[in-house]
Amino acid sequence: MAVHVGVIGEGVCSTRVARQAERVGAAIARAGAVLLCGGLGGVMEAASRGAAGAGGVVVGLLPGLGRGDANRWVTIPIVTGMDQARNVVLVRSCDAVIAVGGRYGTLSEIALALKLGIPVVGLRTWRLRQPEGRRVPLLTAATPEEAVARALRAVPRRGRRARTWLA
Amino acid sequence: MAVHVGVIGEGVCSTRVARQAERVGAAIARAGAVLLCGGLGGVMEAASRGAAGAGGVVVGLLPGLGRGDANRWVTIPIVTGMDQARNVVLVRSCDAVIAVGGRYGTLSEIALALKLGIPVVGLRTWRLRQPEGRRVPLLTAATPEEAVARALRAVPRRGRRARTWLA
Amino acid sequence: MAVHVGVIGEGVCSTRVARQAERVGAAIARAGAVLLCGGLGGVMEAASRGAAGAGGVVVGLLPGLGRGDANRWVTIPIVTGMDQARNVVLVRSCDAVIAVGGRYGTLSEIALALKLGIPVVGLRTWRLRQPEGRRVPLLTAATPEEAVARALRAVPRRGRRARTWLA
Amino acid sequence: MAVHVGVIGEGVCSTRVARQAERVGAAIARAGAVLLCGGLGGVMEAASRGAAGAGGVVVGLLPGLGRGDANRWVTIPIVTGMDQARNVVLVRSCDAVIAVGGRYGTLSEIALALKLGIPVVGLRTWRLRQPEGRRVPLLTAATPEEAVARALRAVPRRGRRARTWLA
Repeated sequence: MAVHVGVIGEGVCSTRVARQAERVGAAIARAGAVLLCGGLGGVMEAASRGAAGAGGVVVGLLPGLGRGDANRWVTIPIVTGMDQARNVVLVRSCDAVIAVGGRYGTLSEIALALKLGIPVVGLRTWRLRQPEGRRVPLLTAATPEEAVARALRAVPRRGRRARTWLA
Repeated sequence: MAVHVGVIGEGVCSTRVARQAERVGAAIARAGAVLLCGGLGGVMEAASRGAAGAGGVVVGLLPGLGRGDANRWVTIPIVTGMDQARNVVLVRSCDAVIAVGGRYGTLSEIALALKLGIPVVGLRTWRLRQPEGRRVPLLTAATPEEAVARALRAVPRRGRRARTWLA
Repeated sequence: MAVHVGVIGEGVCSTRVARQAERVGAAIARAGAVLLCGGLGGVMEAASRGAAGAGGVVVGLLPGLGRGDANRWVTIPIVTGMDQARNVVLVRSCDAVIAVGGRYGTLSEIALALKLGIPVVGLRTWRLRQPEGRRVPLLTAATPEEAVARALRAVPRRGRRARTWLA
Repeated sequence: MAVHVGVIGEGVCSTRVARQAERVGAAIARAGAVLLCGGLGGVMEAASRGAAGAGGVVVGLLPGLGRGDANRWVTIPIVTGMDQARNVVLVRSCDAVIAVGGRYGTLSEIALALKLGIPVVGLRTWRLRQPEGRRVPLLTAATPEEAVARALRAVPRRGRRARTWLA
């Protein structure tokens, strides 16, 4: 099975953020990894376009009730019909996640990945400090290509990956 | 986007049912469609093996919390962590569904597909009559290959597919 | 904790079925059990009205994104935002389930309860035969009051209830 | 319908945080509101104990597959079987949410509430700054009682509450 890298970010974004997301998507595809995202517009669409342009597979985990919401670069649309709960499916299905820009939805997904022990790399995203000042293991990167490289290096080797239990 | 055909059936099955499921999977892949299934053993594994053997893409919508549950023929594992609720995601993501054999879980998925208006073809599966004797639009087939052919013919043409609303 | 009895049935129903559902709800409340349902109209609303009229607690597991969809007799609305997947939460949260009338959605919930080993009593609902002719343990009742009595007798005694594992 | 106030926080916590959570639960019940929480230990259990001790209703939205995981103060256990996705159901079902202490799971829920436009009050919890320095509307409180008072004042008046759409 190929490595799964998720790209998270909001459905409406600036041109600048979109360009970064597109480069992230392209780098994921060039590395032979599958891109997972929420399948809609903004960061999701830009990353999808980047991956599809580089010949990659794009899985879109859609929040709504039909496939019609998917952006045109999604190759495998999954119709969850579960609104925000689809984010949990998205994060859990990834070996590593890259957050590009981002507002509250993205923060929620970053936190979920941290909780599940899935590596997260942030690109122009939230900076976090725990209530008691503990360090948050959110990786950062200066460029889209560096973000993808860091994400791939952080993927646990197959077989070592701990199961995350119900809690 | 390729047509998505789901294969539903239980996680433990007879050799006879497994052989049928494998032929269903192979026919789906030969038709250029993507196979979606629950990603585990029994009917799911046999169908996955058939599709993978014919060079197809196999999406496994896993009920548990990790990718380790997937059978070895799944090419794109989606880790829902939602137990039985993953069946809803599976059915909703398909253009048509084929039920092979099956016990209660399969019946639940057949009923869900009927509710959502997604075509279902049954192969050695439940026969159903509504409480008031109304006909149930569950298609049937005598062979795996006929099941796939009927499923593909029943797929609504793109653009005509009605959205299914929250209810 | 009180016993939880679910009432399942469609969102649009005949006056006759509604009267039966209302009596089911009233009998559940008189027995001191909590009624769980999908929170919308039809069978769900009639059962809710019956339970609320008898002073009972009515939990409505809503499929949509807001509380506004709940019928007026729901005392505890839970907003799942998960469309059909809320049925899984409903069935799993019950000690026993009563199906009143019903079309495909109800069939899907009956099958799910059978799969999870939760007792189901049917009132004017689907009759089922397994593919290989095996008996289906769907209890039946001639009146609403008998349905509730059978459901309560079928509730596993606390402590004996087996956990249902991920599969 | 009573006002629904959610209490979020981790399943293992210090005695100090537990005492605060217990006072939060008690204040919610004294105000006549229903307490919703994740139903397990730590902050969830302490808040449940506080509310139950003050005669309140405690809804526990459990992540696992059985009711046996609920702490003993939960009066209405809802068995989601959806692991982390139950957090989405919890947040969406509340008029306001109070975060007590908290690590990544709590952060994820705070972010989700902010995304859905549901008021959140934090007590010894995360402090947040958006990537571009925008203010985050996370209310704060110095005592448990103040947290509950702020949460209740922030509840949108019935009828004015905007629906949150699929996105």
